[in-house]
Amino acid sequence: MSVLIVGSTALDSIKTPAAENSRLLGGSASHAAVAASFFAPVRLVGVVGEDFPRRYLSLYRKHHIDLAGLQILRGKTFHWSGEYEVNMNNRRTLRTELGVFESFTPRLPAAWRNTPFVLLANIAPGLQHHVLDQMRRPRFVVADTMDLWLNIALPELLKLLRRVDGFVLNESEARQLTHEDNLFRAAKKIHRLGPKYVIVKKGEHGAVLSSGSGLFVSPAFPLPRVVDPTGAGDSFVGGLMGYLAAAQGPVEKNLRRAMIYGSVVASYCCEGFGLETTTRLTGAAIERRVRALEELVRF
Amino acid sequence: MSVLIVGSTALDSIKTPAAENSRLLGGSASHAAVAASFFAPVRLVGVVGEDFPRRYLSLYRKHHIDLAGLQILRGKTFHWSGEYEVNMNNRRTLRTELGVFESFTPRLPAAWRNTPFVLLANIAPGLQHHVLDQMRRPRFVVADTMDLWLNIALPELLKLLRRVDGFVLNESEARQLTHEDNLFRAAKKIHRLGPKYVIVKKGEHGAVLSSGSGLFVSPAFPLPRVVDPTGAGDSFVGGLMGYLAAAQGPVEKNLRRAMIYGSVVASYCCEGFGLETTTRLTGAAIERRVRALEELVRF
Repeated sequence: MSVLIVGSTALDSIKTPAAENSRLLGGSASHAAVAASFFAPVRLVGVVGEDFPRRYLSLYRKHHIDLAGLQILRGKTFHWSGEYEVNMNNRRTLRTELGVFESFTPRLPAAWRNTPFVLLANIAPGLQHHVLDQMRRPRFVVADTMDLWLNIALPELLKLLRRVDGFVLNESEARQLTHEDNLFRAAKKIHRLGPKYVIVKKGEHGAVLSSGSGLFVSPAFPLPRVVDPTGAGDSFVGGLMGYLAAAQGPVEKNLRRAMIYGSVVASYCCEGFGLETTTRLTGAAIERRVRALEELVRF
Repeated sequence: MSVLIVGSTALDSIKTPAAENSRLLGGSASHAAVAASFFAPVRLVGVVGEDFPRRYLSLYRKHHIDLAGLQILRGKTFHWSGEYEVNMNNRRTLRTELGVFESFTPRLPAAWRNTPFVLLANIAPGLQHHVLDQMRRPRFVVADTMDLWLNIALPELLKLLRRVDGFVLNESEARQLTHEDNLFRAAKKIHRLGPKYVIVKKGEHGAVLSSGSGLFVSPAFPLPRVVDPTGAGDSFVGGLMGYLAAAQGPVEKNLRRAMIYGSVVASYCCEGFGLETTTRLTGAAIERRVRALEELVRF
């Protein structure tokens, strides 16, 4: 089955202690779409400007990502610049130029309204609502977010939480949203806001799924060297949704394994700048790390 | 088989945002010994003063901890006071009164020199050496430590690392010791200092074992409420060594499961002040959480 993904489609200029790269293909939807593409057909909803390099369109197409929902508007592509500190855990936004995103209204091709799996990747909650408004009873909807929206669009985000099956956020965002320091109590509070499935990302410490059937702790693949963690969270949720869309049987049954596949794609993402390593991934490379994770937690 | 445990035997005065308790039974050896006692016979090496409450001696004995290596000296028992911040992750030492520890020289009963499993729980590296000097070819030796010894007794600690099979330390200590931010590279560096098995404790994020046969990620039992984390690390390594001493077959084969049992005892430790919940533990309660951890990581 297909996954519809809406989110940011951007150019990223990224500085790490070791190197600097400018105008890489980035954005939550780009990372999530490429990650999902290893498992299922992907439909991408987003917007870019006239300056968007053609080679990036080719790169989407190479991954069989359907671009019928990608608008190319007059103006500049959304551009984000950021810098990582030595430990690669803290990052600082240097500049954000919204460009064509300022006037973006997502419009879905009619044939896409029945897409069973919907990923509302990180983007303004208003746009996430707007996409959901155009869908006809999707089977499974997951939303991602970031601290910015907790700060400037909390009412819209809270409204969104009542409309989604799953919600993905990182540890500090979970604390910010719930004013609860304990992760497990925080997850309980988030369930009460709507989502049946709450996934808290903990970076190098893995991720935790909370659902009616209890907790699942997904390990992170141990990386001796992180080159650029930008897009790791988006790759995680993209891989997860791609796996779910391709898997047989009920979502509940497949969700744990979907998180493992998401973690694996995210681990590869961290090993190169932007989408550098993710786009070179093979099914065999993914399966190899899935088996390594099985071995990592076996006791 | 038996486990010999040396470490601090102390009175702890602990303040948390919720409560305050003074002169509880504490110290690395007390926590580790009680934790190990659920699995194997324990031999305790330590020192207390004349002020040491008799009920604490009874408590050790209730757990069948052999006290032939516990010296009772003129003077005061080692007393530690500390305070936890709201999130229970950061703690501040308010006062340390060494008391009889200042003149402590561990002396092992002759019959103990052949004990197969030796836990050098957190204490000055000089004392850890002193115990090891008295042992005759123990089967498996594990050392724990703390940041204090990295700061004031590094040469002795480094010498110790060449004499032990396993070394347990927490994440920030691993970074401090190796000047390496990445945990997996840090573990590799620590192997080069001597220990075949390196276990890095990550608190609520679990623990990681690094050995010749690769990595193992042990989850932490998810606790909705932490009452007092004092002694959790000591309980972890105590439970681990107790399990190893009781298990059949080679240590290498049993180490992963030993970490799981250690994690479980540590989780109970955090749910009460001092040794309050640990001393009330039953085998059934331990097995219940081991099964819960199995379910937690299953995919």
